[in-house]
Amino acid sequence: MNGLSVNRASVRQWELEELVVACVARGVEGVGLWRDDVETYGLERAAAIVHDAGMTVTSLCRGGFFTDPDVAARREDNRRAVDEAAALGTDVLILVSGGIQPGSKDLTGAREQVAEAIADLAPYAGQHGVRLAIEALHPMFCSDRCVINTLDQALDIAEEHPVAQVGVVVDAYHQWWEPTLDAAIDRAGERIVSFQVSDWVTPLPEGVLTGRGLMGDGCIPLRALREAVEKAGYTGPTEVEIFNDELWNRPGDEALDSIIERYRTHVI
Amino acid sequence: MNGLSVNRASVRQWELEELVVACVARGVEGVGLWRDDVETYGLERAAAIVHDAGMTVTSLCRGGFFTDPDVAARREDNRRAVDEAAALGTDVLILVSGGIQPGSKDLTGAREQVAEAIADLAPYAGQHGVRLAIEALHPMFCSDRCVINTLDQALDIAEEHPVAQVGVVVDAYHQWWEPTLDAAIDRAGERIVSFQVSDWVTPLPEGVLTGRGLMGDGCIPLRALREAVEKAGYTGPTEVEIFNDELWNRPGDEALDSIIERYRTHVI
Repeated sequence: MNGLSVNRASVRQWELEELVVACVARGVEGVGLWRDDVETYGLERAAAIVHDAGMTVTSLCRGGFFTDPDVAARREDNRRAVDEAAALGTDVLILVSGGIQPGSKDLTGAREQVAEAIADLAPYAGQHGVRLAIEALHPMFCSDRCVINTLDQALDIAEEHPVAQVGVVVDAYHQWWEPTLDAAIDRAGERIVSFQVSDWVTPLPEGVLTGRGLMGDGCIPLRALREAVEKAGYTGPTEVEIFNDELWNRPGDEALDSIIERYRTHVI
Repeated sequence: MNGLSVNRASVRQWELEELVVACVARGVEGVGLWRDDVETYGLERAAAIVHDAGMTVTSLCRGGFFTDPDVAARREDNRRAVDEAAALGTDVLILVSGGIQPGSKDLTGAREQVAEAIADLAPYAGQHGVRLAIEALHPMFCSDRCVINTLDQALDIAEEHPVAQVGVVVDAYHQWWEPTLDAAIDRAGERIVSFQVSDWVTPLPEGVLTGRGLMGDGCIPLRALREAVEKAGYTGPTEVEIFNDELWNRPGDEALDSIIERYRTHVI
């Protein structure tokens, strides 16, 4: 399945081994991992599960949370995330930057803190052959997860650093509504290091995190978006990342088959 | 209570008469109405309830929903909304522009449709002494309520028309996260015809509509925002508009007292 990568979180009902076997059987060549997998299986074993099957790790999710009050611990943890990405053989470390600390109303300060922490981390990433992938999260996550909320904001930070060190994610779910998205994607160009898809569906569930839809169930023009990032120069995979209780409740085989079918019908 | 207007929807457990009596007793001079009130009480009676008590209607919510497939009916209804605003003695008609029609993925087309419908409505509003107040809703409402999602987007449309015909709302809940909000407020200047407050709290409830917090319960720097809109030239009231089940379940007096206390502590 050319160009498709399945993010581990989309089929979390499976063990990693099950996902890999099923992907290989269907010709899916890439998988996006989470640090939870590293914790569950150990770094070497997680890498071996994917690589021994002939598959590629397309991204590691996630570093970030730079607004954590324990700056030293967070700095250390982010360096470990870079090490893990390198050991897993992926050059893409997704960053979810962190929200506003409880009790604070200082959004501007939080954003500055993120930019500073990325500046601190970027050279270390570059030394290890890993690019930091700044992910702008939908504004509904601004307070509690990520104060970087538009592609232009992510680019403002990324462009302070060498392309080999810092790039951006284009995630259809987070970015589809942006009024100046086309221009931002053009601007992003070679900074785009990951392209992720799911679909926007309503009503959003309580907490909004697990409300992502399967491609085709919502209102995002996914094919046009994929064409736009490719026109801007992106040549990497399309990673399907869906957080959805209904999808997680289905047998893994069914869930994976749906993902592949929807990718075929609505993305390529 | 200088500068405070209480939006009808914040204390919807009360009849309009109850709200007006309680506001007068507390020195609150302004109230924002909804078209539901016009429907419930009739236009003349709704106007009389407010004016006979010596209060002012600070805004009427809402016209809009321009992406409705029945363009003719929607055009007619929006003209009626202008008439109602004029009859209620307010020159501010809030517009919630409408979302993407079910099955459509044409966000750009929907946004163009909104701009065209506002261009059609603006002269009619001007003739009746009413200014259309374009409200940019938080991007989490983009698909189902409003495809206008940033203050700059609202201004791009408003600036096509005379100031006397089309302005914008600055609503803390919808706009607080915007990366370029300070510049957009400066740009807005005399276009700002309404300033609304509540607070951003998480987790968001299912459907996200009724998740607004009382001022001070969340992360929005409300006082700084009020000062910014005033620095930009806005001299009108601060309207408190909160959709919150917990607030609606309290006795009206308690709810109103909380609103006033929070306005005093966190806004002025």
